[in-house]
Amino acid sequence: MSKCIPAVVLAIGFLGCPALVIAQVTTSGLPGIVITDSSSNKRTEHLRLGPQDFSVPILQNQPAWSVEKSTLHGGKQEGCEIITIDSGTLSIVIVPTRGMSVLRVSKSPNSREPGIELSWNSPVKEVVHPQFVNLESRGGLGWLEGFNEWMVRCGLESAGHPGKDEFINNVGDKVEMDLTLHGKIGNIPASKVSVTVDREAPYRIRVQGVVNERMFYGPKLELITEISTVPGTTAFQITDKLMNHGADDQEFQMIYHTNFGKPLLGKNAKVVVAAEKVEPMNAHAAKSIDSFAAYEPPTKGFIEQVYLVYPKSDSNGNARALLKNAAGDQGVTVMWKTSQLPYFTLWKNTAAEADGYVTGLEPGTGFPFNRKIERKFGRVPKLGPNMSRIFELEYSLHLDKEAVNKVESMISQLQDQPPILAAEPISIPKP
Amino acid sequence: MSKCIPAVVLAIGFLGCPALVIAQVTTSGLPGIVITDSSSNKRTEHLRLGPQDFSVPILQNQPAWSVEKSTLHGGKQEGCEIITIDSGTLSIVIVPTRGMSVLRVSKSPNSREPGIELSWNSPVKEVVHPQFVNLESRGGLGWLEGFNEWMVRCGLESAGHPGKDEFINNVGDKVEMDLTLHGKIGNIPASKVSVTVDREAPYRIRVQGVVNERMFYGPKLELITEISTVPGTTAFQITDKLMNHGADDQEFQMIYHTNFGKPLLGKNAKVVVAAEKVEPMNAHAAKSIDSFAAYEPPTKGFIEQVYLVYPKSDSNGNARALLKNAAGDQGVTVMWKTSQLPYFTLWKNTAAEADGYVTGLEPGTGFPFNRKIERKFGRVPKLGPNMSRIFELEYSLHLDKEAVNKVESMISQLQDQPPILAAEPISIPKP
Amino acid sequence: MSKCIPAVVLAIGFLGCPALVIAQVTTSGLPGIVITDSSSNKRTEHLRLGPQDFSVPILQNQPAWSVEKSTLHGGKQEGCEIITIDSGTLSIVIVPTRGMSVLRVSKSPNSREPGIELSWNSPVKEVVHPQFVNLESRGGLGWLEGFNEWMVRCGLESAGHPGKDEFINNVGDKVEMDLTLHGKIGNIPASKVSVTVDREAPYRIRVQGVVNERMFYGPKLELITEISTVPGTTAFQITDKLMNHGADDQEFQMIYHTNFGKPLLGKNAKVVVAAEKVEPMNAHAAKSIDSFAAYEPPTKGFIEQVYLVYPKSDSNGNARALLKNAAGDQGVTVMWKTSQLPYFTLWKNTAAEADGYVTGLEPGTGFPFNRKIERKFGRVPKLGPNMSRIFELEYSLHLDKEAVNKVESMISQLQDQPPILAAEPISIPKP
Repeated sequence: MSKCIPAVVLAIGFLGCPALVIAQVTTSGLPGIVITDSSSNKRTEHLRLGPQDFSVPILQNQPAWSVEKSTLHGGKQEGCEIITIDSGTLSIVIVPTRGMSVLRVSKSPNSREPGIELSWNSPVKEVVHPQFVNLESRGGLGWLEGFNEWMVRCGLESAGHPGKDEFINNVGDKVEMDLTLHGKIGNIPASKVSVTVDREAPYRIRVQGVVNERMFYGPKLELITEISTVPGTTAFQITDKLMNHGADDQEFQMIYHTNFGKPLLGKNAKVVVAAEKVEPMNAHAAKSIDSFAAYEPPTKGFIEQVYLVYPKSDSNGNARALLKNAAGDQGVTVMWKTSQLPYFTLWKNTAAEADGYVTGLEPGTGFPFNRKIERKFGRVPKLGPNMSRIFELEYSLHLDKEAVNKVESMISQLQDQPPILAAEPISIPKP
Repeated sequence: MSKCIPAVVLAIGFLGCPALVIAQVTTSGLPGIVITDSSSNKRTEHLRLGPQDFSVPILQNQPAWSVEKSTLHGGKQEGCEIITIDSGTLSIVIVPTRGMSVLRVSKSPNSREPGIELSWNSPVKEVVHPQFVNLESRGGLGWLEGFNEWMVRCGLESAGHPGKDEFINNVGDKVEMDLTLHGKIGNIPASKVSVTVDREAPYRIRVQGVVNERMFYGPKLELITEISTVPGTTAFQITDKLMNHGADDQEFQMIYHTNFGKPLLGKNAKVVVAAEKVEPMNAHAAKSIDSFAAYEPPTKGFIEQVYLVYPKSDSNGNARALLKNAAGDQGVTVMWKTSQLPYFTLWKNTAAEADGYVTGLEPGTGFPFNRKIERKFGRVPKLGPNMSRIFELEYSLHLDKEAVNKVESMISQLQDQPPILAAEPISIPKP
Repeated sequence: MSKCIPAVVLAIGFLGCPALVIAQVTTSGLPGIVITDSSSNKRTEHLRLGPQDFSVPILQNQPAWSVEKSTLHGGKQEGCEIITIDSGTLSIVIVPTRGMSVLRVSKSPNSREPGIELSWNSPVKEVVHPQFVNLESRGGLGWLEGFNEWMVRCGLESAGHPGKDEFINNVGDKVEMDLTLHGKIGNIPASKVSVTVDREAPYRIRVQGVVNERMFYGPKLELITEISTVPGTTAFQITDKLMNHGADDQEFQMIYHTNFGKPLLGKNAKVVVAAEKVEPMNAHAAKSIDSFAAYEPPTKGFIEQVYLVYPKSDSNGNARALLKNAAGDQGVTVMWKTSQLPYFTLWKNTAAEADGYVTGLEPGTGFPFNRKIERKFGRVPKLGPNMSRIFELEYSLHLDKEAVNKVESMISQLQDQPPILAAEPISIPKP
């Protein structure tokens, strides 16, 4: 059995199942087994669920799977909840206390097949509880005190660089506030967490979490997140639904900040993405625009390089970005819809191992400039009252050269002519 | 038995009992059954108390009463303590973790009489633990991330609008600090919480909490709060004692921010208060000064209107403000002493339901301008070393037309001539 | 048996044992019995250890000793961990949740000998959990909301006064941040806490804690703290190891902010320290430079006086500062290495009891000016990648006149000529 699901199957699954399930999801009640729920005052210190709890069979030749909730203790991780999906092939660790971020994806301890660790070695070692994070600190960079996830969402009211932006206050005046790096959503504990399993084969496992970014005289946004995988496969999906419960239009920003270190990242590792255009985020990145797709080894004193990618999508509207190792025999692809997430940021931070050797592949509703700048470029969407948006991403592993080549050629077919590589960063309109 | 206590009885109870009990209250020990106490390292996850725990009888024809402590879990309410007084007629929910705020008052589930829900539908749904509130955020408006209580105290070192004000720092210099909206007291967990029941009929139930707003080189204020009610009645009292434990005079501010949504608030609901004068807080409120006492239906995009009321008191020194519904058959009155709380702010925020359709009736030591402005108007009192102040408020429900009319006419008698309605906001002295 | 260890023995112990043990300490594993460990998800609500748990004998004529871990509840101390070493002579209370600060040192309840309480009466009464401290508040003075320890470390990335300083951000730009008073280390919970006992006589008890001050694009500092004492003695040691896990040089600052109130502090109490020079920190302190070594009684409205001391050390490199009471029959000495901590700040805050009557004896890597100023004076050291520094301090009690005189004369011998007393504060170089 191939652990690498053919792209065509992915696409069907991608457009099919999740939408069905999302349709059942409402704020009043998530289906499945509830692990945490503030509305019913429920919280579980520890819980382990398996097929028997959902009355679903284990398919033949499939490893046993489980979903385990545990609570972390000690240091800055005191009280952090984590949920581990062990699909038999993949082990996916989710952090409800940190906005349903994904800490890491690795090979299941029960798997006899090869796998790839998706994570990076951040200088932040613990799973930091939001009580120990002050987003306002260090000139709005406090978010970096907890940053070590493989995938952390940036948003919802704002994402991107810290800095001043205007907002309308209680008396109707336009006043200034300090936006903080990448917003709040990654440091808000989930109000409701539940596990569901599809009633029919292939019995997809879904962990859902509701994260509220709400305040009086501010956003009333609800994010219903879902991370799901089919036991026995090496792919998994993220399907999020963002809702505006306010009476007015609400600006929002969303970036899926997905981060990779070793083993995939390394000297001559490469990112493959079909793009109309690639722009450097600043003059420093501009210097290396020609090699934007290739990686350096860990380099002491390396200053981050950020590239703004305008991705191309296939006839189904799906864009893909592949990160492959230097040997080309291991890779991971993220697939997403450009109608949902039209921009793609490539963050290269190939600093010394000790400082965080990492690259970010980041589909988003915009780029990570401060919201004030993003707004000028028309990249800050609004959500009408009671309106919602869906964001769907699928990650899949490629475990041998053939699989890597296959997805690379699929991406390359979209790149009929080379992307425009901007020699200089676009000039930012003055305030 | 009438659930609406005649005003004359209220007045006696009001001036009588609470003062007696307060006299027994010292920092060294609260009487009664202790639920939480940091000095003896006591905290209870869950506790339910009833008449038997205090060796008091249940009066004939009286419903059973209870006081229940529980702990909230999930999302941003993780670890929040709440205490519910079920008097048999009223259910009063207190939040020790949020400065002894009152989350909501509703009809007891055991009551067969009619009742009125005192609360509002804030876009903030959970009882937010202070660990998730950064008062400094959003330009000092972080308080709004937890704002959903029926009654929240604003203070103690400062209340009102955020903004810069001066203070004396450790080296004796006058320096600037950013005051945050409505101060800290609503986000400080109570150090001591206890329940007492009067030993004599009518066996008043009292929940007391000690909240400390203390720091080195800063205020050393202690607030001993008490919420009390007599089983079988539809009135309840707040009796707070504020003490300055510092060696110097200490400025303070206190606003009882009491908030009402449906069912009382609605189109043509009305507030009745006897006033010398009513001033609009700003030019926007000035436009509607003539209809300051009447409410609009939920209105999308409504900008708050704030009116500064200089209340008149009766011969006992008590002022009253009545909020009655459009039909005039339901109402609630807050009664307080103008010697203790000489000002009354009326906050009208009849925005869309989704954004928080709410009005605030707010007796206070001042108005909610930034402290720097309040000081110019002479509305920032000081407390000498070891000195204290008492604040007493009584809330009572009016459950039919007759009861509403009675209290309305009592208030109207004080209004022998119409209040001065200022056409324009008072000009604020320049810094 | 003398409870006052002769200085010569101290010196040997000081230079001997601790270094040996520190050599065994690595980030990968502390020896001994682990109480808290985030890497293995371990945390204990309550634990009591004694000689039997370490298979060491109790020496003849020695009192029983214990190390007890407990968890505090109620108010702002909810969830705070404390560890009490009861050596039979001393009771040392450590707060892992607050960066391994020492809350207080007092006479063991099991001791029949005299003792001295080392603590002060802060207006902050509870052991404040960092979740309730916002270091950024009050213009960067939020640290003062939790300040009541006998000994709190200030650092690590910065210590001293709040104010703006430059740092290099993610894109390599020099930008400004607001430093907060005395840095973060005193409000970071320890990631690992363990207890060890030496296998050989005199069976020194050591409580070790690892506190990480780490962030992405920021410091990657680890502090391994150790507090130790020999049962039956009235001295104890602090031996800390600071490590830089980043790939670049890292600035750091460290001040051992050790605070004394009554009974030692009082009118005519005196500090004795051998100094090359003493400078007033500001013009206010300059006025009283001639009496810098003597204390006033509690004085309402007293403004802090801070003196910058350039200490002299003995032939072993040890400096000593003695605080003795007015009668000269009780005292405490701190001994440290000027090679490790070349500066000594004397903080005099003899304010009213209610406001905090306290003095600070503070060996440090610098003085408590804002880092920007300290850097100009060359007092902000750097730690290279994978480099470490050791800080060793020994505190000892002097319980009668003879013992006080002995240490005083030892210190005085170093002061062959009087220290230079600067009449005016040194002028601070302009930015």
